[in-house]
Amino acid sequence: MQAKESILNKVITVGRQFGSGGRELGRRLADYLQIAYYDKEIVEEIAKRTQLSEEYIHNVVEHHPYPLLPITIGRSFNPMGNPMFQITQSVYAEQTRIIKEMAETSDCVIVGRCADYILRDIKPWRLFVYADLDARIRRCYARAPEGEHLTDKEMKQKILSVDKGRQKYYEFYTGNKWGDMTNYDFCINTSNLIIKDAIPHIAHLFD
Amino acid sequence: MQAKESILNKVITVGRQFGSGGRELGRRLADYLQIAYYDKEIVEEIAKRTQLSEEYIHNVVEHHPYPLLPITIGRSFNPMGNPMFQITQSVYAEQTRIIKEMAETSDCVIVGRCADYILRDIKPWRLFVYADLDARIRRCYARAPEGEHLTDKEMKQKILSVDKGRQKYYEFYTGNKWGDMTNYDFCINTSNLIIKDAIPHIAHLFD
Repeated sequence: MQAKESILNKVITVGRQFGSGGRELGRRLADYLQIAYYDKEIVEEIAKRTQLSEEYIHNVVEHHPYPLLPITIGRSFNPMGNPMFQITQSVYAEQTRIIKEMAETSDCVIVGRCADYILRDIKPWRLFVYADLDARIRRCYARAPEGEHLTDKEMKQKILSVDKGRQKYYEFYTGNKWGDMTNYDFCINTSNLIIKDAIPHIAHLFD
Repeated sequence: MQAKESILNKVITVGRQFGSGGRELGRRLADYLQIAYYDKEIVEEIAKRTQLSEEYIHNVVEHHPYPLLPITIGRSFNPMGNPMFQITQSVYAEQTRIIKEMAETSDCVIVGRCADYILRDIKPWRLFVYADLDARIRRCYARAPEGEHLTDKEMKQKILSVDKGRQKYYEFYTGNKWGDMTNYDFCINTSNLIIKDAIPHIAHLFD
């Protein structure tokens, strides 16, 4: 559909709770709509431009905005003077440039990485994908890498820990509350959905 | 679309922030899907069955779960012995029966009144409709009854006060947090939507 203020391209950003299937939903939606899909491609592009390793960038953009800062106390702490902080800031600046370029180039789905905020001037459709914790635990088990044997408690901790990182990262760079529905146009609960089957229905929102 | 666990009828419940256009969205969705729409009809039916006035019931079901209780203190307060409390409880019991009957009879859209919770066993599609406060203020002005001249501040207070009532009522009877996305399948932000134009797109979710 058209938003009140029309946009040039059809750009869909997807925020998501860990284990909710947001990435699958984003990828399938892009396939169905036959538009570009950006997720790990963003990290690859940052790596190319900054000469940092993809693994390092993944840690920076997916987790904590200042993951490698030393523990310091009170007034003696000045992040601006810290070289690690400067790197994370320049990674974010590069990410901002890349995401804007991607959105200007063609219709696309962009997963995570504060894209909803970075692109706010062009008013993308902003999705947030979430699910009950039980559903997310089941989903994570079904997709666990071979050899990973977590208990329910450990899996729950892993899920909440990844979300905590996303939340901190998002809130640090946007000043908005991560997962607060007011920052999104549509929030989709996947607990009772088979994502593959749901896509043709969800895609109509963006006709 | 089908939920994982299929349901007998297509039942859609609509929770909504005041001024978000949730009622309009629900009514238009029912029209578009050619299914029944229940909103004030529920109050009318309760009135018929309980012999209470519609206005009184509206106050009970839309606002506070115990609006007419006297102010009492600490241990001396026993709501069960209070006749007004008993009336509000019996209104809720009647409402529960009516909503279940409606959902069993035919496909329908039901707006408000804890229907998502009351019908949880048949797993309805649960919508929550919301919008930015600014958008809600604009909407309320556009629909204000003739002769109502509220300032922005007064309109904001009115909106927040109605929502507070809905929240208290919902939380009292369901034990769930009103407007918490985990209790809904889809949350729709109407701030940037023209509801009339959005309906054919939203309706596809329930094909």
